[in-house]
Amino acid sequence: MTVSFNDVQEAAERIKPYVHRTPILTNESLNQKVNAKVFLKCENLQKVGAFKFRGACNAVFSLTNGDAKHGVCTHSSGNHAQAIALAARMRGIPAYIVMPSNAPQVKKNAVAGYGGQITLCEPTLEARENSLDRIRLDTGATVLHPYNNEKVIAGQGTATLELLEEVPDLDAIIAPVGGGGLLSGTSIAALGIKKGIRIIGAEPENADDAFRSLQAGEIIPSVNPKSIADGLLSSLGSLTFPIIQKNAEQIVTASEQGVVDVMKFIWERAKIVIEPSAAVALAVLWEQKIDLRGLRVGVIISGGNVDLEKLPWN
Amino acid sequence: MTVSFNDVQEAAERIKPYVHRTPILTNESLNQKVNAKVFLKCENLQKVGAFKFRGACNAVFSLTNGDAKHGVCTHSSGNHAQAIALAARMRGIPAYIVMPSNAPQVKKNAVAGYGGQITLCEPTLEARENSLDRIRLDTGATVLHPYNNEKVIAGQGTATLELLEEVPDLDAIIAPVGGGGLLSGTSIAALGIKKGIRIIGAEPENADDAFRSLQAGEIIPSVNPKSIADGLLSSLGSLTFPIIQKNAEQIVTASEQGVVDVMKFIWERAKIVIEPSAAVALAVLWEQKIDLRGLRVGVIISGGNVDLEKLPWN
Repeated sequence: MTVSFNDVQEAAERIKPYVHRTPILTNESLNQKVNAKVFLKCENLQKVGAFKFRGACNAVFSLTNGDAKHGVCTHSSGNHAQAIALAARMRGIPAYIVMPSNAPQVKKNAVAGYGGQITLCEPTLEARENSLDRIRLDTGATVLHPYNNEKVIAGQGTATLELLEEVPDLDAIIAPVGGGGLLSGTSIAALGIKKGIRIIGAEPENADDAFRSLQAGEIIPSVNPKSIADGLLSSLGSLTFPIIQKNAEQIVTASEQGVVDVMKFIWERAKIVIEPSAAVALAVLWEQKIDLRGLRVGVIISGGNVDLEKLPWN
Repeated sequence: MTVSFNDVQEAAERIKPYVHRTPILTNESLNQKVNAKVFLKCENLQKVGAFKFRGACNAVFSLTNGDAKHGVCTHSSGNHAQAIALAARMRGIPAYIVMPSNAPQVKKNAVAGYGGQITLCEPTLEARENSLDRIRLDTGATVLHPYNNEKVIAGQGTATLELLEEVPDLDAIIAPVGGGGLLSGTSIAALGIKKGIRIIGAEPENADDAFRSLQAGEIIPSVNPKSIADGLLSSLGSLTFPIIQKNAEQIVTASEQGVVDVMKFIWERAKIVIEPSAAVALAVLWEQKIDLRGLRVGVIISGGNVDLEKLPWN
């Protein structure tokens, strides 16, 4: 195993001054609907609106001073880009963010707002990787992958440390799975505290590469997946796949409609803004894709970044 | 004074088993925008989605067994009705709710969902009071006014006890004011803990009866006020007016546009669902209607009940 429980504990100490300790909410209507006692670990209320800030912070603050002074870089159009930009600003180092030229203006603004230096490129993986390579060679910046990175994985696990500290007697934890950084970190943290706790990954039916990879026993990448849960379109990485293979009981999938339904329900009843990718973890309960009736279930609400002008129920 | 700090402390003990201890959130973008350090006491995350549940709980659980067995009644089409219905269900007694026949179906469903027994009447104050009177005579139920009631006022103050327990060094607290129950309770709790803390009421320009009443030195009722902040249309009561007159530094008003702008900003950046009436308390900072620059300011986020199909920015 490349990431240990001790790594997660060290990450928690390292990032403590920078991250929010997010609240854990319960909701009676939700419990009745899904027949379980659900504890929502609200990483949508984390800085930059997503758990990604934990991993980014751990990676950025783990760098030696010598490495850090050259800055950090990544390619991303999502929450990871904002997380890296803010973490770098907190450390006082440059963050170079490669974004596809067709990324929404609101996302470019958000990265720039956190002080990230944006390089636009053609919207292909090749162009993104070439741009990133050039920046790395020009600046000496450290590349920080959004999930296939030990420090990032350890950082993501810190949400679960807090969850189990406040609610120790959980039977299961559900986390959404895209590239697998969150689910990997969650599993390492949870099993380090509580042997036998059930670790469940949740994924959109339309982007079920983790489900298929676990069935096949090898990484089966997604090919152009399309889902409203746009944070979960990545495929598992060489670091995250073996961790999930070892630690997760199963990967369960949710329908697009289930994701929208539970997202709206949570906004209406729990009064928090969650993004579709976060709703996936609740949708598998909502749609009874897994039977956890009567159990105490922690759910990592991964983020809350949504375009309020384009809500899926309008 | 009809409600004492001790009443608020007793209320806190009484309702503790039934209410959520709501989180207190901070948001760096908001702080930068308003030039202050703001602490959001999130009563939108309270049961029934509003602080009203605190007052309702305190009133319902303060009844003697002899009175309680006949039930409780009120007329309301808003959060108070749901709060009374749920508190009564928790005590195992009937709740009779008079609602105007033109109340939105979603609100009727919510009250019925909490076990409230609804009586519909013509949408006039006279018809509502007549219906309520009849129920009281028929059933012996205790009438619980939404704000002009000592137990309700004491209950509303408990949010501020929690706020100052976790963030003791506040310079000021802002609460929205409609009938004045929340602002009254807030002021009694805050001044009981911290002499000299500044108590500020926030109200829509379009429903500024509290502002005008304080200016005039007597209750000036609103006449058909129209504001998006539909929880703040009531006028001050005989109990709340003197408390606010004595304790509040001032009442500040916010524009309709300011309310919508700050509401959207909070959804987008703080990832919580707040209703227009809650946004009013932030809008007075946002619009610089009061100068609290550099201070530590507690804001009571009063509720989060919003129709997601009819958002003011769509």
